[in-house]
Amino acid sequence: MTSVISLLTDYGLEDGYIAACHGVIVGISPESRIIDVCHLVPSGDVRRGAAILAQTIAYLPPGVHVAVVDPAGGGSRRAVAVEAGDHVFLGPDNGLLSWAIHASGGARAAYELSNKEFFLEPVSPTFHGRDLFAPVAAHLAIGRPPSELGPEIPLERLVSLPAPTSTVQEGYVEGEVLSIDRHGNAQLSIGSGELGTLDVAPGDTLVVWLGRRRLSVPFRESFAAVPPGEIVAFTDSAGLIALAVNSGDASQRLGLPPGARVRLASSP
Amino acid sequence: MTSVISLLTDYGLEDGYIAACHGVIVGISPESRIIDVCHLVPSGDVRRGAAILAQTIAYLPPGVHVAVVDPAGGGSRRAVAVEAGDHVFLGPDNGLLSWAIHASGGARAAYELSNKEFFLEPVSPTFHGRDLFAPVAAHLAIGRPPSELGPEIPLERLVSLPAPTSTVQEGYVEGEVLSIDRHGNAQLSIGSGELGTLDVAPGDTLVVWLGRRRLSVPFRESFAAVPPGEIVAFTDSAGLIALAVNSGDASQRLGLPPGARVRLASSP
Amino acid sequence: MTSVISLLTDYGLEDGYIAACHGVIVGISPESRIIDVCHLVPSGDVRRGAAILAQTIAYLPPGVHVAVVDPAGGGSRRAVAVEAGDHVFLGPDNGLLSWAIHASGGARAAYELSNKEFFLEPVSPTFHGRDLFAPVAAHLAIGRPPSELGPEIPLERLVSLPAPTSTVQEGYVEGEVLSIDRHGNAQLSIGSGELGTLDVAPGDTLVVWLGRRRLSVPFRESFAAVPPGEIVAFTDSAGLIALAVNSGDASQRLGLPPGARVRLASSP
Repeated sequence: MTSVISLLTDYGLEDGYIAACHGVIVGISPESRIIDVCHLVPSGDVRRGAAILAQTIAYLPPGVHVAVVDPAGGGSRRAVAVEAGDHVFLGPDNGLLSWAIHASGGARAAYELSNKEFFLEPVSPTFHGRDLFAPVAAHLAIGRPPSELGPEIPLERLVSLPAPTSTVQEGYVEGEVLSIDRHGNAQLSIGSGELGTLDVAPGDTLVVWLGRRRLSVPFRESFAAVPPGEIVAFTDSAGLIALAVNSGDASQRLGLPPGARVRLASSP
Repeated sequence: MTSVISLLTDYGLEDGYIAACHGVIVGISPESRIIDVCHLVPSGDVRRGAAILAQTIAYLPPGVHVAVVDPAGGGSRRAVAVEAGDHVFLGPDNGLLSWAIHASGGARAAYELSNKEFFLEPVSPTFHGRDLFAPVAAHLAIGRPPSELGPEIPLERLVSLPAPTSTVQEGYVEGEVLSIDRHGNAQLSIGSGELGTLDVAPGDTLVVWLGRRRLSVPFRESFAAVPPGEIVAFTDSAGLIALAVNSGDASQRLGLPPGARVRLASSP
Repeated sequence: MTSVISLLTDYGLEDGYIAACHGVIVGISPESRIIDVCHLVPSGDVRRGAAILAQTIAYLPPGVHVAVVDPAGGGSRRAVAVEAGDHVFLGPDNGLLSWAIHASGGARAAYELSNKEFFLEPVSPTFHGRDLFAPVAAHLAIGRPPSELGPEIPLERLVSLPAPTSTVQEGYVEGEVLSIDRHGNAQLSIGSGELGTLDVAPGDTLVVWLGRRRLSVPFRESFAAVPPGEIVAFTDSAGLIALAVNSGDASQRLGLPPGARVRLASSP
């Protein structure tokens, strides 16, 4: 039986770090299929890592999902395994896993990774991905039960990241820029459901407030529904509202970094 | 039986987009081997994507090859499956596949992807890679015939990219810079066969015209045949003439962006 | 039986070069598992490639390990296969493999790759990765013995890179910056054993000399043991001393490029 192990880190691709994790996994579980979710999470950016994992998890097969974005570097935080849906998530207990766990139906059980039988000894304090999470993932993949990993943790003790803020008010919805993708599209923390409270549908025009700037922006099915060079809003592939410029870079054009506040209203 | 699915996109590596495509494929066809051809095609650069696929396809095993560089974002163009040689190519019908199809011996049959039975519903208008091409590729890999994908398309209706221009004249060959690789080598749209019309062989000297600039450049088997820092022309691994600087960056040194016109002549 | 083939190159990820190597391998050895060690070695940087491979090899399963960083571009140097430990290393005989061979217990046998039966003909002079090393690796993976690859080479004839310099003196240890990782951490050519000659243990303070600048730096188990923004030294995951700034970039902060000289002493 093929088992799936996915990996998300901020290790980058300029070293052999990812290969070391792959090698450790293959050495223990030669039949596992490894899916690299992303290794270019900005260094230490737990929220960005959490968002990528949460937006990808619904498309990954049942399996063991390792995520390591760990500004504390294996310091004070715990390492945990969390069962949710068909998945087991492994990572530092710093909130990185929390949005993906929520997207998978919520945690059913959680364990602290303390059973050193599963670790590569000695564990480097700065490379838990290789010495701790990779071998634990591989042992789960070959059938060891999560309950052997260490003591169970009460679910309410798991660290959760605060969700990206968005508020629905009379007449408008406010949120923030969650991320900028490679094409310069700005993904907002506003879901299509929230926008729906404004009675806005594809084909309508939105009023977009960026601070004191007011823009009229067509709301369409896709960025390609407006001529090249024009600004457009659409529901992206994660179900969130995005601002884009067809064949252009919305982030640069509108001066929108991650975290910028955006308010959407229906056109009068 | 192991089947091969290859992927080429302009999605970049900073998100979970590629992993979502892998996950969808593995969920349907757990035994498929996935080869990532390239995911750093410049955003929306259909010609560059077409060139990479065409120069790689001869080295890929028989299989299903997915390519998605799609400035129209799933808008007006069709999604197609094209049988050529031992391969089935999947992608938008915007010319992206055309050079690889030609390099594989030409199209034998083509189908419009319209049978929603093979799609992940709902299909996001902006992520056909995940919701349409990946699941279709996986279903082909497990044995569903292309003819089930949708109505057959007359081959002459498939969109073809114009080939990179190069002209052979009395005494010279003219072409353009097709691409710049990581080392700064400038690959020209001039094949070794075209250069052959000038009676030039490795060991000779070429006259290279860049606009009004005239350079004498040694033509060699490899960039390494000249001392470090010197300019050289050679036949690259795709059979095209390249300009390089040994241990240097020819694109910067000569001011050669993609698209720049270059004329080659034999030395008098 | 699954066999492992690993690949390390300076080909970058912006072309189809790596995919062509994968495709050639899969065509010959469909069951091999390929691990990409790193393809972003700086162009032509043999020492950096050697360091990455040497620091990763202990974590890779027994297998065939291909490395291609080759400023001579297949010119004058030989192509070799070297048996060491449970591994066979393939690459140019320019020292690239030497540190990993040493880390694997030293060479037991070496062969020149000259048997064209294993090559993809014609061999492009500038793409030995695809036409020579990939098919040779795949043939080894399906069981052909290294002795069939070509004539045996006396081990003392193999090219070795000089090891990064570090010197232990009365009262101090001197070395150089070996590499800067993605987080800006500066890895030194000083091992934890060498530092041990100074009787320094985690919890102590080090004196770090950068030219004439003198810094007092805490020596800790991990970068996370100091507050964000503070400089710290620790033993990294390769067993080498590293200078870091917690949640910051030590290379930028301290002006430390690869090759910079660093002297460590115990605090008086």
